[in-house]
Amino acid sequence: MKIAVDAMGGDYAPLEIVFGAVRAAKKYHCEIVLVGDEAKIREVLSKEPGWEKLGISIHHASQVIEMGEHPADAVRTKKDASIVVATRLVKDGVCDAVLSAGSTGAAVTAAQLILRRIKGIGRPTIATPMPTPKGVTLLLDSGANVDSKPEHLVQSGIMGSIYAEYVFKIKNPRVGLLNIGEEETKGNEQAKATYALLKNMHTINFCGNAEGRDVPKGNFDVVICDGFVGNVVLKFAEGLAKTILKLIKEAIKGGGILAKLGAFLLMPTLKKLGKRLDVTEYGGAPLLGVNGCCIISHGSSNAKSICSAIGVANDYVRGDVLAHIQDTLAKEDILTHDGEKK
Amino acid sequence: MKIAVDAMGGDYAPLEIVFGAVRAAKKYHCEIVLVGDEAKIREVLSKEPGWEKLGISIHHASQVIEMGEHPADAVRTKKDASIVVATRLVKDGVCDAVLSAGSTGAAVTAAQLILRRIKGIGRPTIATPMPTPKGVTLLLDSGANVDSKPEHLVQSGIMGSIYAEYVFKIKNPRVGLLNIGEEETKGNEQAKATYALLKNMHTINFCGNAEGRDVPKGNFDVVICDGFVGNVVLKFAEGLAKTILKLIKEAIKGGGILAKLGAFLLMPTLKKLGKRLDVTEYGGAPLLGVNGCCIISHGSSNAKSICSAIGVANDYVRGDVLAHIQDTLAKEDILTHDGEKK
Repeated sequence: MKIAVDAMGGDYAPLEIVFGAVRAAKKYHCEIVLVGDEAKIREVLSKEPGWEKLGISIHHASQVIEMGEHPADAVRTKKDASIVVATRLVKDGVCDAVLSAGSTGAAVTAAQLILRRIKGIGRPTIATPMPTPKGVTLLLDSGANVDSKPEHLVQSGIMGSIYAEYVFKIKNPRVGLLNIGEEETKGNEQAKATYALLKNMHTINFCGNAEGRDVPKGNFDVVICDGFVGNVVLKFAEGLAKTILKLIKEAIKGGGILAKLGAFLLMPTLKKLGKRLDVTEYGGAPLLGVNGCCIISHGSSNAKSICSAIGVANDYVRGDVLAHIQDTLAKEDILTHDGEKK
Repeated sequence: MKIAVDAMGGDYAPLEIVFGAVRAAKKYHCEIVLVGDEAKIREVLSKEPGWEKLGISIHHASQVIEMGEHPADAVRTKKDASIVVATRLVKDGVCDAVLSAGSTGAAVTAAQLILRRIKGIGRPTIATPMPTPKGVTLLLDSGANVDSKPEHLVQSGIMGSIYAEYVFKIKNPRVGLLNIGEEETKGNEQAKATYALLKNMHTINFCGNAEGRDVPKGNFDVVICDGFVGNVVLKFAEGLAKTILKLIKEAIKGGGILAKLGAFLLMPTLKKLGKRLDVTEYGGAPLLGVNGCCIISHGSSNAKSICSAIGVANDYVRGDVLAHIQDTLAKEDILTHDGEKK
């Protein structure tokens, strides 16, 4: 197992990325190739004595794609950008997976251009695991594509179902279509047309429409939606969680001695709960639908998130997710991205 | 001030609706007409001695539109349904506002068919107030329409801005377009086309794209989006809040004596915070874009929510929201719902 990590991508790169990689090398005993500015990476590594014995190596790349750049233009022109070089290591069979906390658009574009789409897949999709009281729900697409066609959403459903089965070990995962009501007739044109395709499928366990509230409650294992909606919902959840936490802290701060004592006594319990609901426990979301394992991490990832994300790459590769998706699509009589039967 | 309340709509109708109306009559000193099955309403009122002196009256309606019914068919065929009769009371000038916690589709359809759309408005929109640390953010459309055209979203922006100004007393409200990134080039076709229209407008204070996380943080006063996205986001928020609360309670229950003591000491502080973030403090969302005040309440509304919602109707009418919207649209050189200049 060898994982290419884009050391230059992310708000806290290369520092937190490199530290996360070191942590993961110890935890998962996998080889890691840090891709990016060698001098900068080496400087961070110098703070981690003994890193050479952990199976960590450096692959120099002279360029970086910044957050504001146009993804397709940047990937095409910056041939030596860290994310481009890292993705190519997967294409060339040197590495089993690529991971980046840099520009999501650049990572998705690099994967599409270099690894190419799986046959039968019109658009790749980002599958974000969300912790719920019942375990985990996979939300996809969470931002790789917008204005997706119904066939694309169906393909997301197939891929998400396979991922949930082989990575989360959920038998016959419950797949839901994110919509504004339970009934088949509800929703926008995209949702209604997708429902019509899904209800006739036997490959996946389609359980009908999922309403917004079903996602945090964990009523479905896999929830499919357009990348526009998925992205808005995920960022909303992130903002809401942070806001609630901030307000609770402020309230305790301004709440007198008894409130402070109460908070102190309650802290261990809340911390345990927080850990259970912590999104950084997953740390990364796989991009499904390309010929290779590509893991997208949040821009604000710290060492802990990066370590978890490398764990996700590990699970993806060991679960043989790619082969399962390729096999299923080869067997299935589903619609291709052009809307025609294969 | 006279408000028509659909006494038969909602999960806890007529009980909680009637109790809420009594509470509001005391609080806001407005007249209330309870519309629905007279015998059932009278039975509930019998538990509220002295209700006759509060300016509450009953208007009998023999039919009810159930949640599962097709809104347009039901509104057209059930001429004596409580929501239809209540809406007609506004049309006829008997009442100043109508309020329902029943089928949202039926309430919206009744308003459209009976009150009619305001000239210059292609589609009415539900404007839901969300509590934030900075005050309140109005999210619209939160479910009246899906697959809206860019012009409809622009109209939502104008109406939301007026509502925020005259009801929430926010000077020059900051209007944002819900999108997946800050940049003008981000988003789906609908968002990009809407941005292009909004950036040239001088009637409203358009401040660019709002990402999902900006909504709970309260970074905008008014956030506009398609009803599909708005509905998913609102229900997601509702589910997330409930899930977090449930998990905290469970954690405390299973957390030993110190955790329980801590929770006890912290409770007053958290309750104060909870009140600040409580959505039932608003209780209802106005349907903007029809010629009359129509307030939509959550199906699970209790007496407290209904009372608050009647407060919303009060604010709407006293703020002269309808006249301000009509005036602005009459003056404005904006696109009509057909995409043509007026």
